[in-house]
Amino acid sequence: MNKNVSIKLSEIASLVGGKLIGDADVIINSVARIDEAVKGDLTFLYLHEFEKYFPSTGAAAILVKPDFNKTRSDISYIEVDAPEKAFTSVIINFFSPKFELKGIDETSFVPKSSTLGKNVALGKNVVIGADCKIGDNVKIFHNAVLLENVEVGDGSIIFQNVSIREECKIGRNVIIHAGAVIGADGFGYQKDDKGVYNKVPQIGNVIIEDDVEIGANTTIDRAALGSTIIKKGAKIDNLVQIAHNVSVGNNTVMSAQSGVSGSVTIGSNVIVAGQVGIAGHLEIADNVILMAQSGVPKTISKPGLYFGYPAKEAKMAKILEAHFRNFPEYVDRIKKLEEEIKKLKEEISQKKS
Amino acid sequence: MNKNVSIKLSEIASLVGGKLIGDADVIINSVARIDEAVKGDLTFLYLHEFEKYFPSTGAAAILVKPDFNKTRSDISYIEVDAPEKAFTSVIINFFSPKFELKGIDETSFVPKSSTLGKNVALGKNVVIGADCKIGDNVKIFHNAVLLENVEVGDGSIIFQNVSIREECKIGRNVIIHAGAVIGADGFGYQKDDKGVYNKVPQIGNVIIEDDVEIGANTTIDRAALGSTIIKKGAKIDNLVQIAHNVSVGNNTVMSAQSGVSGSVTIGSNVIVAGQVGIAGHLEIADNVILMAQSGVPKTISKPGLYFGYPAKEAKMAKILEAHFRNFPEYVDRIKKLEEEIKKLKEEISQKKS
Amino acid sequence: MNKNVSIKLSEIASLVGGKLIGDADVIINSVARIDEAVKGDLTFLYLHEFEKYFPSTGAAAILVKPDFNKTRSDISYIEVDAPEKAFTSVIINFFSPKFELKGIDETSFVPKSSTLGKNVALGKNVVIGADCKIGDNVKIFHNAVLLENVEVGDGSIIFQNVSIREECKIGRNVIIHAGAVIGADGFGYQKDDKGVYNKVPQIGNVIIEDDVEIGANTTIDRAALGSTIIKKGAKIDNLVQIAHNVSVGNNTVMSAQSGVSGSVTIGSNVIVAGQVGIAGHLEIADNVILMAQSGVPKTISKPGLYFGYPAKEAKMAKILEAHFRNFPEYVDRIKKLEEEIKKLKEEISQKKS
Repeated sequence: MNKNVSIKLSEIASLVGGKLIGDADVIINSVARIDEAVKGDLTFLYLHEFEKYFPSTGAAAILVKPDFNKTRSDISYIEVDAPEKAFTSVIINFFSPKFELKGIDETSFVPKSSTLGKNVALGKNVVIGADCKIGDNVKIFHNAVLLENVEVGDGSIIFQNVSIREECKIGRNVIIHAGAVIGADGFGYQKDDKGVYNKVPQIGNVIIEDDVEIGANTTIDRAALGSTIIKKGAKIDNLVQIAHNVSVGNNTVMSAQSGVSGSVTIGSNVIVAGQVGIAGHLEIADNVILMAQSGVPKTISKPGLYFGYPAKEAKMAKILEAHFRNFPEYVDRIKKLEEEIKKLKEEISQKKS
Repeated sequence: MNKNVSIKLSEIASLVGGKLIGDADVIINSVARIDEAVKGDLTFLYLHEFEKYFPSTGAAAILVKPDFNKTRSDISYIEVDAPEKAFTSVIINFFSPKFELKGIDETSFVPKSSTLGKNVALGKNVVIGADCKIGDNVKIFHNAVLLENVEVGDGSIIFQNVSIREECKIGRNVIIHAGAVIGADGFGYQKDDKGVYNKVPQIGNVIIEDDVEIGANTTIDRAALGSTIIKKGAKIDNLVQIAHNVSVGNNTVMSAQSGVSGSVTIGSNVIVAGQVGIAGHLEIADNVILMAQSGVPKTISKPGLYFGYPAKEAKMAKILEAHFRNFPEYVDRIKKLEEEIKKLKEEISQKKS
Repeated sequence: MNKNVSIKLSEIASLVGGKLIGDADVIINSVARIDEAVKGDLTFLYLHEFEKYFPSTGAAAILVKPDFNKTRSDISYIEVDAPEKAFTSVIINFFSPKFELKGIDETSFVPKSSTLGKNVALGKNVVIGADCKIGDNVKIFHNAVLLENVEVGDGSIIFQNVSIREECKIGRNVIIHAGAVIGADGFGYQKDDKGVYNKVPQIGNVIIEDDVEIGANTTIDRAALGSTIIKKGAKIDNLVQIAHNVSVGNNTVMSAQSGVSGSVTIGSNVIVAGQVGIAGHLEIADNVILMAQSGVPKTISKPGLYFGYPAKEAKMAKILEAHFRNFPEYVDRIKKLEEEIKKLKEEISQKKS
């Protein structure tokens, strides 16, 4: 977090458009959870379950809803309708981490054929390949490696130990977290008559558009031909696998450990929850939500909530799951029916006789 | 992709054994998808859904099936039975990436006790441990680390940021993609009376045989004792977990995010699809196919297609899945039966009275 | 494994408290599996399936149960009740790997504001950020990167290519395997009116307590605010995802490719098997066991074995699974009931008429 911050509470009240009750001049140095806050901290309260910490919190000031019972006089209050959003605004404005890195470290390597924009920072042992173009204000942390002909747009941040293979294009204001691998070969082989898999050269690349964030140790493979594309504003979590020739739409979110097979096209504003898998060559429509651990074997062309393995519309999946949980009861009912039928048959046959 | 290529179309026709229709002397500089091809490009067409791009493609030449309707005269054609395979052959022969890396970079480290073959290339900051043996024509990219007593066979390629721990043996023509970790400690503990897990030293290694490919950020743990083995020709995708003492058979394919627990033996020519999990100490027979997201709790001794969690033969799994989808209908039928029985009982009792 | 070991068999018998039968002075240089053992090796036998290797093993000595039929006279025996545990003790005492790394390599970087304890070893190209505190006897392998204000406790080992972000605190005797990423940003965004995700700064950190082991390429995200905590003695396997603000309890074990969403609290002595997923903001009670591939959508407050998706108590999950496997039979029984009802109705209506 940004250290050495010193703001008057009145400035914060002004930022969040809240009503200040208490000492407008109290100095805020930091932010903290209500159960961890100490002197100089701003905190917030919006869930009932955290109210138990209010009597003992050491916070100097607290963001609360207007109807909060302000029983302590040794703490200052800012009343806002959405304390959690106001708190996030305060963090964004005053406490955002700077990801500090300055200058071109002497142990980094930039060949003459590559160009660096203004105010670029390269950490220790950073390796830039031939013919790369690095935009203004880019930060590349220690031990990251970019092979030849890579482009990185203005304002992007590449963390340590990231690998970017040749020919890949990274947009502006992209964040790539540590250990991510962009542009490794797609998984493509031709099986010969002897059952041997011969490698199909993967001669495409990866294009990551502006404002994308890529999680730690995530892997995005280069296309066999053409490009694997992550579109503007998409957010991809840790340990996600994106195979060759996949396209991920604008503002689509993919949670940790989800995986997408080759040549899948995912629409815009899609939410892919954790550990979801999507089979190859499918399309996922805009505004689809895939719930955690779902497996998708077929194209989904209708927006909505999907769930399960194979993924079904969530409403149907929940009905099926409820039936599944009641399975022992249904089996009992079948048994009972069989007994009753048996009895009825006996009764009828007795009557006959 | 390999740049500065310049081939006559007649050479390509000759390579793929196709019939050339048009300008035999047209020069091909590159290959591209039909919807992205421009002047100088060779493209191909074998799926009907891509025919819509034919009228507007900028390609200089196109691989097509013999029955294709060759309506354009400003483009040259090569007729072949399997355009997609011919296209792959062209890529393999003329456009394979060279993974260019030359010489021993001065920032790499090779101790005196280690030996390098002929024509080895070591990138920046590569660290080679003591007593390593690196074969001829090996390329090790920037910031990769090999600890002591590692062997790498002729022609192998190790990409950036790969970690290979001590004692591991890598065969010939192996490709290890960026960020993979070979030979980390297996996950082995002895729990004591207090519930504390004490580490069991993992004193085995990993053996990777010839012609294996290992995906980005995949982890292959060293054996507790003996070796974890990846056999000749196996292909392993990204983010795969191979635990200690596993053996993966010849020409077996493991897709992304699949995981294998300790001491599993996987046969030859097995296909493990994405996100599959295999429990410990099992055997998977040759020629088994495990469909995506399957979970395998028991040994599979019969070749065939398996699916689901727990994995069942695919035919049975599909029948069960179909029944599962019809569950609401079955419940309705049970209800209806109950009502009918009730009615019948009433009728019979009325008769009695 | 530790080389150049030379121990008399009598020493080993004494260590494991076993009865020595044969040559007490035979020198043991190494340990091996019974099927791989050669001259100078100690091996062990406790599973019947390995007895077939006994006649041909080249081992010098073998740990066996007291009732083992000692038919060979060219091999020495140590009788113990639990040969596998005795064997592990021998490995721990005499053959534990030393993870050798000595001194501060001249290519590592330590700024003046950071402090190193006694006997610290830093490998090649290690980067230490500003204001770090590295304890005594810490080993940090090649190309690992620690950003500013990181603390590492005495005796911890950090393998190559590990990334530790700013502010994270690592305890004593912690092992972090290659490629792990500690303290990357949590996956937190606020969606605005246009559907754009705005990054919520992640200003917390990660605290890893004493005696924790973290697997290769595992990712543990920093908290949004406060700390993501891995408590004393927890063991985390490869490719595991721990999201922001998660707490993992003492002596809890998490197997490979499992994933935990944000703000989950996992108790002590929990076992999370491979590929398990846990949804956000839940609590998992002490002593819970989550079987492989389970998905947990709700808090689990009762110790015990859980299984499936969504996770159920294992006993119930097994009953449901058994019913599911019998689904075709139940459908047949429903059909048969329908036919019998039809027949009964006909019979009754015939009687009426």
